[in-house]
Amino acid sequence: MNQLRLDLRKFTKDRNWESFHSPKNLAMALSVEVAELVEIFQWKTGDEGLSTKEYLNLRDEIGDIQIYLTMIADKFNLSPLEMAKMKMKKNIEKYPVKC
Amino acid sequence: MNQLRLDLRKFTKDRNWESFHSPKNLAMALSVEVAELVEIFQWKTGDEGLSTKEYLNLRDEIGDIQIYLTMIADKFNLSPLEMAKMKMKKNIEKYPVKC
Amino acid sequence: MNQLRLDLRKFTKDRNWESFHSPKNLAMALSVEVAELVEIFQWKTGDEGLSTKEYLNLRDEIGDIQIYLTMIADKFNLSPLEMAKMKMKKNIEKYPVKC
Amino acid sequence: MNQLRLDLRKFTKDRNWESFHSPKNLAMALSVEVAELVEIFQWKTGDEGLSTKEYLNLRDEIGDIQIYLTMIADKFNLSPLEMAKMKMKKNIEKYPVKC
Repeated sequence: MNQLRLDLRKFTKDRNWESFHSPKNLAMALSVEVAELVEIFQWKTGDEGLSTKEYLNLRDEIGDIQIYLTMIADKFNLSPLEMAKMKMKKNIEKYPVKC
Repeated sequence: MNQLRLDLRKFTKDRNWESFHSPKNLAMALSVEVAELVEIFQWKTGDEGLSTKEYLNLRDEIGDIQIYLTMIADKFNLSPLEMAKMKMKKNIEKYPVKC
Repeated sequence: MNQLRLDLRKFTKDRNWESFHSPKNLAMALSVEVAELVEIFQWKTGDEGLSTKEYLNLRDEIGDIQIYLTMIADKFNLSPLEMAKMKMKKNIEKYPVKC
Repeated sequence: MNQLRLDLRKFTKDRNWESFHSPKNLAMALSVEVAELVEIFQWKTGDEGLSTKEYLNLRDEIGDIQIYLTMIADKFNLSPLEMAKMKMKKNIEKYPVKC
């Protein structure tokens, strides 16, 4: 994750894209990528599985979503993985296992 | 990331939520969490910064998004981090640095 | 539809909200409202129907989506209803009925 | 609006698409169309305006959003326009004009 953050910073800097990458713009971009993932499953009625094209598309979309999420988090010096771990602790307390 | 995947599998199994967690449903849940992140930045006009409440909310939403993204990817035995790294390689080729 | 457009213009003007209502901001707001509608159906597995609370919520969300859509369209002097009719003509040509 | 509802019912029926058009699927489709509209404004930093291609795209997306919204509402025998009018009444009470 740390390597990804550093790579993304360099990628953005090398292309002079920092001015476009406000948290607001990145949040919009993230929502667009998520919709592209939703689109894959949109008309599925059950467990039809994915075509090869859909599967390759899925891999790219998951990558894009992780990229934008990491960039937004990095704007606030946060790690998405750390945030996920902390949120999991809350969820475990919020939804106790029924015995 | 691997630890998060294992924790999420156990969390879901312990609560018998597997039947709800189709890729389709997880994609919808992901889009709802992303909208909650978008909502934080929705009416910002520039660099106003976040209130403490918004900042704490942001941390939770980033966590939720990472959680759902990891769960969807895990359904296809994929790691979001690996997908991000592979997508970055494509992006670097697609958008060459202008010298 | 025309009455709704006039009412929305007056509503925004009376509250001095014009500066927040850029097409970009309205598009984000629209996406947030749609996610609130998606949330209603998120974990449904079939035809379970809606609770009274969900049904009342649905009515409000449909209203909110229509409101923001009308406001965005009005920024470009367009009527969503006219756009829908024109798009339907395209769709009828694009997807011919199989006899 | 009533004519649009009738046209959409006929369009769907003629193509035997009713089984795909659960409220859940329609809500997903709506969110995908909204993301396509968000995409138009995603990297805009101010009032740059739209290119001709973006403008034509905008018209189509507004049409698509109105179409899916009308289809979802029709599943519950509701009119989006009526819902918007009712929601506006609530909004006027919720956000009183400051004198």
